[in-house]
Amino acid sequence: MSSHHAPSSPGTLSYEQAGVNYDLIDPLKVSAQRAAAATAGHLAGHGFTEVAASRGESAYVVDVGPFYIASIVECLGSKALVADEMAALTGRSWYAGIAQDTIAMAVNDLITVGATPLVVQAYWAAGGSDWFGDATRAQALVAGWKAACDTCGVAWGGGETPALAGIVEGGRIDLAASCTGLVNPKQRLSVGDRLAAGDAIVLLDSSGIHANGLSLARKLVERLPQGYLTEIAPGLSYGEALLAPTVLYSPVTEALWAAGIVPHYNANITGHGWRKLLRHPGTFTYRIHTVPPVPPVLRFIQQQAQQDDQEAYSTLNMGAGFALFVAPGDAERTVAIAQGLGIGARVAGTVEAGPKQLLIEPLGLRFGDDALQLR
Amino acid sequence: MSSHHAPSSPGTLSYEQAGVNYDLIDPLKVSAQRAAAATAGHLAGHGFTEVAASRGESAYVVDVGPFYIASIVECLGSKALVADEMAALTGRSWYAGIAQDTIAMAVNDLITVGATPLVVQAYWAAGGSDWFGDATRAQALVAGWKAACDTCGVAWGGGETPALAGIVEGGRIDLAASCTGLVNPKQRLSVGDRLAAGDAIVLLDSSGIHANGLSLARKLVERLPQGYLTEIAPGLSYGEALLAPTVLYSPVTEALWAAGIVPHYNANITGHGWRKLLRHPGTFTYRIHTVPPVPPVLRFIQQQAQQDDQEAYSTLNMGAGFALFVAPGDAERTVAIAQGLGIGARVAGTVEAGPKQLLIEPLGLRFGDDALQLR
Repeated sequence: MSSHHAPSSPGTLSYEQAGVNYDLIDPLKVSAQRAAAATAGHLAGHGFTEVAASRGESAYVVDVGPFYIASIVECLGSKALVADEMAALTGRSWYAGIAQDTIAMAVNDLITVGATPLVVQAYWAAGGSDWFGDATRAQALVAGWKAACDTCGVAWGGGETPALAGIVEGGRIDLAASCTGLVNPKQRLSVGDRLAAGDAIVLLDSSGIHANGLSLARKLVERLPQGYLTEIAPGLSYGEALLAPTVLYSPVTEALWAAGIVPHYNANITGHGWRKLLRHPGTFTYRIHTVPPVPPVLRFIQQQAQQDDQEAYSTLNMGAGFALFVAPGDAERTVAIAQGLGIGARVAGTVEAGPKQLLIEPLGLRFGDDALQLR
Repeated sequence: MSSHHAPSSPGTLSYEQAGVNYDLIDPLKVSAQRAAAATAGHLAGHGFTEVAASRGESAYVVDVGPFYIASIVECLGSKALVADEMAALTGRSWYAGIAQDTIAMAVNDLITVGATPLVVQAYWAAGGSDWFGDATRAQALVAGWKAACDTCGVAWGGGETPALAGIVEGGRIDLAASCTGLVNPKQRLSVGDRLAAGDAIVLLDSSGIHANGLSLARKLVERLPQGYLTEIAPGLSYGEALLAPTVLYSPVTEALWAAGIVPHYNANITGHGWRKLLRHPGTFTYRIHTVPPVPPVLRFIQQQAQQDDQEAYSTLNMGAGFALFVAPGDAERTVAIAQGLGIGARVAGTVEAGPKQLLIEPLGLRFGDDALQLR
């Protein structure tokens, strides 16, 4: 990410300055992706094939005959560090929400390919056995994990709870979730071939920062005299706002299918902000005419980090957690279905023939073809 | 584990003394298992059902109609710390083997239910971006991961490579693998209903400590003046011996199926040593008449930790990495198939009607019904 845009002014805090250096990680990712791609042929030995278009998408898909199997593993990231700080400041446990965040990282990616999430596995690697000795925190993690599974209609299959002193920091926990699902029936597969000029872009609201951009958000705390307890709205602290759990979007994609709506493409808006709208490999212009309201915590981060809109929308979700690209005739019904599930939604724009770019017209922003290099 | 047996003498180093306190972890595990079991009903909403007998087994299995889907996530544990120490001492990278270990933790568990592993996802959470900047080490991890996928005939679907400063220790990496597979055709399902008195117990050789018992092995280094460079056999250091990669057993289970042999039950011999032979929920006596040779590194650990055989076989694999319970008429052919793949194997004993116990007759050992409480 660091190579894609420079901070806009000397006082600006960029994601790179917050401690993540993608120049070091990217060569490994490229070589891992190349090695991974070279293993696809093994599936033929079992009578199956990969869906090649799923390489580079958010979940990996295999054609096993009667349906497709999708699988994924996803990391929470550093949001648990905020929960730990807030627990020390408030005496409450925030791990029920953290559990939902972790599952959301996996489920919201898995559904982009059209999969129904079926089984979630828990990966809870603590810095020592004593992490699990805080029964209130541990029970919050269990209860939140269960509740998120209930919301998504997935079975919690099991998992790992290792104590990894010397690898995970003392008092900390490394959280991840793996998820397996089915694309069933197979016409639900969504890996981009259906996207067309004229499609509508429906954006589903986020609840706040979700679980991306936390390195930046944590770095900002150093600039705040009251730290996480800084009020960003009446009665709402920065820490509490950051810890709003990530929205689980699979009830929406399941309800759309039940209503006969098959999205032409989906994008989970995570670490690259609105640039994720450029994820599809094709050449289209994405013209946004309506932007969702910006959650107070994201507006606060933007202001504190002295980011202009170009930078903020390229890193943070700015109120849009998930994008559904649907046939124009399905757009309003898609919005209604999401809203019926309590998730804010709006028809935000259209897909057009034209050069690959994202135009956020209400803000006068443009992101070009080179803004997102994920593959 | 700590509650199940006490160290045999004051000089003995037990697993508990090596820093893992299961008394703190177990209450969480029990409550997580209970919550997880309560989510199984969600599968009915998708037209599927769980294989209830797989709860408590090594992988979770769902009946999706034409076949079963099995899934799992598994952690490497602390073996990477040995690789880091040995890299400092020898200037070599040991991460190709570490990659194989990580995949083995997932694959060797997944195959116990009769599944063919299809897709592996990588979870590589480093203490900072700089971990990936050591190109030699990073490339060894990639190459080893690819090679293990090739051995197992699985597709490497993708994964996560987060930099988790503040959660994972600087300079360290938390490695895990998730794996999804199919039980196909469905008669390959192995969750214990076939096990019967008269069955033969075939043990497949381990390559050494595999990836369990490393906390104990690392603790012992403090007692060794030459540390990891201590010679445990001519030209073989303690560190190098510990880092022998875990054997990947899926080629054996696949070859057995191709030969028309369906094991009645399988046990991956990991953290609870030979007590894993008691894993099946039924009431049988497991009588061992032949034990495999003990790898030098495990004999060395036993001696240095001053463990008697009872303690060593209850914690370490002592040369047996995987147990296949097969019809007596299939036993010799099972051995021949494994040996044909370069994996040492032997008919080690029989399953008998009788009280639940494991009798290792050549060593005069007995483990009773209370020796293993995993569920």
